Amino acid sequence: MNIRKQYHVAIIGATGAVGKELLHQLEKRHFPIVSLSCLASKRSMGQTVPFKNSLIPLQMLTENSFNGIDIAFFAAGKEVSKHYIPLALEQKTFVIDSSSAFRKEKEIPLVIPEINSDAIKEHQLICSPNCVASILLMVLAPLHKKQPIIRIVASTYQAFSGGGNQEVEKLKNATQAFLNEKTPSYYAFNLFLHPTPKGEDDYLDEERKVIEETKKILDDPTIEMSVTCVRVPTLRVHSISLNVEFNGPMSKQEALTILSQSKGIAFMENPTPFAVSEQDPVFYGRVREDKSRPNCLDFFVMGDQLLKGAALNAVQIAETITMRQLCHSP
Amino acid sequence: MNIRKQYHVAIIGATGAVGKELLHQLEKRHFPIVSLSCLASKRSMGQTVPFKNSLIPLQMLTENSFNGIDIAFFAAGKEVSKHYIPLALEQKTFVIDSSSAFRKEKEIPLVIPEINSDAIKEHQLICSPNCVASILLMVLAPLHKKQPIIRIVASTYQAFSGGGNQEVEKLKNATQAFLNEKTPSYYAFNLFLHPTPKGEDDYLDEERKVIEETKKILDDPTIEMSVTCVRVPTLRVHSISLNVEFNGPMSKQEALTILSQSKGIAFMENPTPFAVSEQDPVFYGRVREDKSRPNCLDFFVMGDQLLKGAALNAVQIAETITMRQLCHSP
Repeated sequence: MNIRKQYHVAIIGATGAVGKELLHQLEKRHFPIVSLSCLASKRSMGQTVPFKNSLIPLQMLTENSFNGIDIAFFAAGKEVSKHYIPLALEQKTFVIDSSSAFRKEKEIPLVIPEINSDAIKEHQLICSPNCVASILLMVLAPLHKKQPIIRIVASTYQAFSGGGNQEVEKLKNATQAFLNEKTPSYYAFNLFLHPTPKGEDDYLDEERKVIEETKKILDDPTIEMSVTCVRVPTLRVHSISLNVEFNGPMSKQEALTILSQSKGIAFMENPTPFAVSEQDPVFYGRVREDKSRPNCLDFFVMGDQLLKGAALNAVQIAETITMRQLCHSP
Repeated sequence: MNIRKQYHVAIIGATGAVGKELLHQLEKRHFPIVSLSCLASKRSMGQTVPFKNSLIPLQMLTENSFNGIDIAFFAAGKEVSKHYIPLALEQKTFVIDSSSAFRKEKEIPLVIPEINSDAIKEHQLICSPNCVASILLMVLAPLHKKQPIIRIVASTYQAFSGGGNQEVEKLKNATQAFLNEKTPSYYAFNLFLHPTPKGEDDYLDEERKVIEETKKILDDPTIEMSVTCVRVPTLRVHSISLNVEFNGPMSKQEALTILSQSKGIAFMENPTPFAVSEQDPVFYGRVREDKSRPNCLDFFVMGDQLLKGAALNAVQIAETITMRQLCHSP
């Protein structure tokens, strides 16, 4: 990528739930863009997406799409990332991937800028983490720095937009049908396990991602975790009930002090998706000393998973890179 | 209470969410009733409730309502229980209370018949436990008998009918308004802390009840618990994500074997409120060995909180009493 103050940017998957938020974040945060290519599959051709008072026509994603692109945000799922990211890297494009395609690769950094921006180094491909991992780590990483965390028990309350726009439509349509006709259905006023494949040990892919990515981002393979991922009928914002065991003393007051000095998070006494929706920070509340075991605290954390859990984090990674380049530029 | 084969029964709070289910359970389970009095406050006068193909007019609850009543089911809240139960007991009425009014009293039994029917002894007042405590204990009590549980971390997903019919109406109305006008509101597609008062330690009344009642029913004050209670936009059925630590080895296979031999519960691989609603058993799924700590298992349990969490349990207590009286009758 050339060092300059304005960038040729591409978004892959611009019509998706995360893609729309990427456009919104780039605009809101005044990301220095000289050109914006919104790339999508054949079936989206003819559509436009709004950006800065204009409508940008979608372009077909092809193997040549990355010629001249400085920064590409991938938000079109694992398979698209697997196929097209190597092609983008060949073109010297700087890639930020919101999918899980490369997150596990040891040599590819997985970054939350407030926590481990150092991991970016000279890498050209950076992964943005799973939404649940991002949200819980925004609250736990600053504490872990002061007093190592040895075990986390997490139960999630995940919003339907985590499954994309089509899942939100299914939820709304089924709910409307139920309210009209009183016919119960799977999507109306129901909850269920996060719909990712299940392994032989009965662990869901989503749960495994949270565990592996937490260890990778904190660069600490010794942290033990038990995770249960559940989708609940909310539209956006993931909530997580956390029981956290530290290696030594960590009082409620000490935790609150550390958290109040940390970036990107805010205290809310009774956080709700209604209050947290479309807000940038991750919110934490219900910080309680768990009397059932020494050195344990409970937390209820919440974040808009389309923002800090995806689009906002990706744009912050891009900002970290561009800031660094400007500082190093001749 | 006289020993006989048919009973004069009263339901206090027959128009409420639990009251309606009490009527339904008494009918469905062929409880031996000679007369049924449905008692309610002044504002319900003129209303009727359906029972066995007829409509029973509500009668006003007064201090003389218990004259000649053999068994009274209280389901009208704590304050009504506090005032009227002593009057019912004076009339030698056998009382089953679904409210929390007397559950903490050491000398008053708190009973789930499958677990501690022995506690009934010769008592004339029996309390039926909190809905979350009932549901989790149906699964954990049989395991605790074989290998003592030393710690439970629980996060709940509680349905709106836990707050009564009026909360369900609020949820439906707010959801309809949101779907019509796209105006976000507190009750539409939102979740929040269980709306009971909070103590200085940030613990909710609901959470405290779960802890205290679990200890009382298992008759084991040493069990340690951390509980987080959350209301989610489902209509009925409470779900609970459980992380359970035993005093010694308890494999997944051993737990499954014990549970398959226990009464009133059933395995469901992916339990959902949609599938569990209006069903008598408590369902358990996602039994996983928690590799993060020795002797720990995870469970996801679910039960219709208006049934085993309230009305069904109350009727089962009455059945236990009447069966016992029949066995002892001359």
